[in-house]
Amino acid sequence: MMSPRVLVTGASGFIGRHAIAPLHTAGYEIHAIGRSDTRNPQVQFHYADLFDTAEIKRIVVDVQPTHLLHFAWNAEPGRFWNAPDNLDWVSASLHLVRMFREAGGQRAVISGTCAEYSWDGDGVLDEATTPLAPGTLYGSAKDGLHRIAEAYATTSGLSLAWGRIFFLYGPGEKPGRLVSDAIATLSAGQPFPTTDGLQLRDFMHVADVAGGFAALLDSPVTGPVNIASGKAIQVRALLEMVASRLGSTDLLQFGARPRAAQDPPLVEAAVSRLRDEVGFVPHRSFADYIAEIAR
Amino acid sequence: MMSPRVLVTGASGFIGRHAIAPLHTAGYEIHAIGRSDTRNPQVQFHYADLFDTAEIKRIVVDVQPTHLLHFAWNAEPGRFWNAPDNLDWVSASLHLVRMFREAGGQRAVISGTCAEYSWDGDGVLDEATTPLAPGTLYGSAKDGLHRIAEAYATTSGLSLAWGRIFFLYGPGEKPGRLVSDAIATLSAGQPFPTTDGLQLRDFMHVADVAGGFAALLDSPVTGPVNIASGKAIQVRALLEMVASRLGSTDLLQFGARPRAAQDPPLVEAAVSRLRDEVGFVPHRSFADYIAEIAR
Repeated sequence: MMSPRVLVTGASGFIGRHAIAPLHTAGYEIHAIGRSDTRNPQVQFHYADLFDTAEIKRIVVDVQPTHLLHFAWNAEPGRFWNAPDNLDWVSASLHLVRMFREAGGQRAVISGTCAEYSWDGDGVLDEATTPLAPGTLYGSAKDGLHRIAEAYATTSGLSLAWGRIFFLYGPGEKPGRLVSDAIATLSAGQPFPTTDGLQLRDFMHVADVAGGFAALLDSPVTGPVNIASGKAIQVRALLEMVASRLGSTDLLQFGARPRAAQDPPLVEAAVSRLRDEVGFVPHRSFADYIAEIAR
Repeated sequence: MMSPRVLVTGASGFIGRHAIAPLHTAGYEIHAIGRSDTRNPQVQFHYADLFDTAEIKRIVVDVQPTHLLHFAWNAEPGRFWNAPDNLDWVSASLHLVRMFREAGGQRAVISGTCAEYSWDGDGVLDEATTPLAPGTLYGSAKDGLHRIAEAYATTSGLSLAWGRIFFLYGPGEKPGRLVSDAIATLSAGQPFPTTDGLQLRDFMHVADVAGGFAALLDSPVTGPVNIASGKAIQVRALLEMVASRLGSTDLLQFGARPRAAQDPPLVEAAVSRLRDEVGFVPHRSFADYIAEIAR
């Protein structure tokens, strides 16, 4: 039997770069498409602008992927929540999925977000029961794309799953995000003003997030699946672990910044779909990650 | 004060062509964009393919519309429900709305559909209380577009309303639709095999639908608004009125065709938003329309 052939977008991004190893282990022939070369010998790279519809069509028809793993999106820290180019990413994604299916593609996984859910409930976000009520353009764009892509999958016979990302950290994290900023600031011996840190958030190591996506792609599971740990950690505890490792606990300034207006006490994923249906369990802890940081 | 300037898409389509007169009466300078000239002296026509993003941007920047009325979509009878190009219309619509806003546009109305709603309830579809659960790709594409466009409107300061179309009839109706087919077939003296006709549907004259959209555009009302009569009519009664006018009641063959699997007994719009907030009341009846048909 021919080995499955996956086309990955965002393959040189924060999550995507960590997805290559598990896809390779699972036996996929890996093709990446985008504007930034993965520089990974396990990947056949195709240079293309995902907004160039004619070029994307040409490459998809040429590669004939059986599988699609779509990570690419605007992820510029801070700005992505309400940037108007979220609309362009919806369009690029719809076109990509359609071209993939029309070229014979069978199975697609697209990255979604915990920001699709309403955060007004008890804080445990469940694929089957938590209402969808995004509070940002990013969340609405992902939610709208998901609804349209699901309907397209139904009418076109495509097997589609939608992986919802929660909070993450790990190697390659850009500046402007919580853990990367804490490490950089505290390593430089600078004070780190932050919120009270009492909020609990479901954090997962980026390599586990990528591994969860690879496992989801390689499964027959369809529909939305939370890609998260299922165990929220207090932001304060997380920052104290970083500071403790760096010997700079005194530089943490809890309460120096206000919490956002709608910043709920708990955001945690229900993970029974990921654990029991996909069969994936993360195996990296925040403590392990912090232990690897150079002091 | 400068007169408002509206850009209309689908202006030569079934609904759009009837929107020109009420927009003109309301004092709008009217620009149409698309591939089919309106041939209407009240309209400045701009030839463009709505899928050509660069061309659309050029025209929008050139025209500088204050208002946008977006009807264009695939409306090919029968095929539009699940055609993959529903995805392309989502993309074209997102791009159009963004270009309109970025060129200084203030107020937009986009056409939605009663097919966005769940049809599993009591049959009275209300903007505030009826769940959205489309059963077709067309309904999902419109629903997804609406969610994304609403979030974009919020972040960009655009005033946006979303008019949900129900069932319609009137001059210019294409073959392949209920009333147009009944008139054509019975006028030709041919038998008209149909369902039992017991289902009740909210039908409105296309000129009233267009008038409702023009009134909505000219109002400050935002969010979803049903554009419908609020009074469903039995399909059987409607066909009997056509046949009676044409003296061919014996050609109606009720029950000769099965009802669709999910064809609910009642589909009727709640119209308090249209009537009380927009202040629009339709004034054409089906009986009036049928009386105008040549015997």
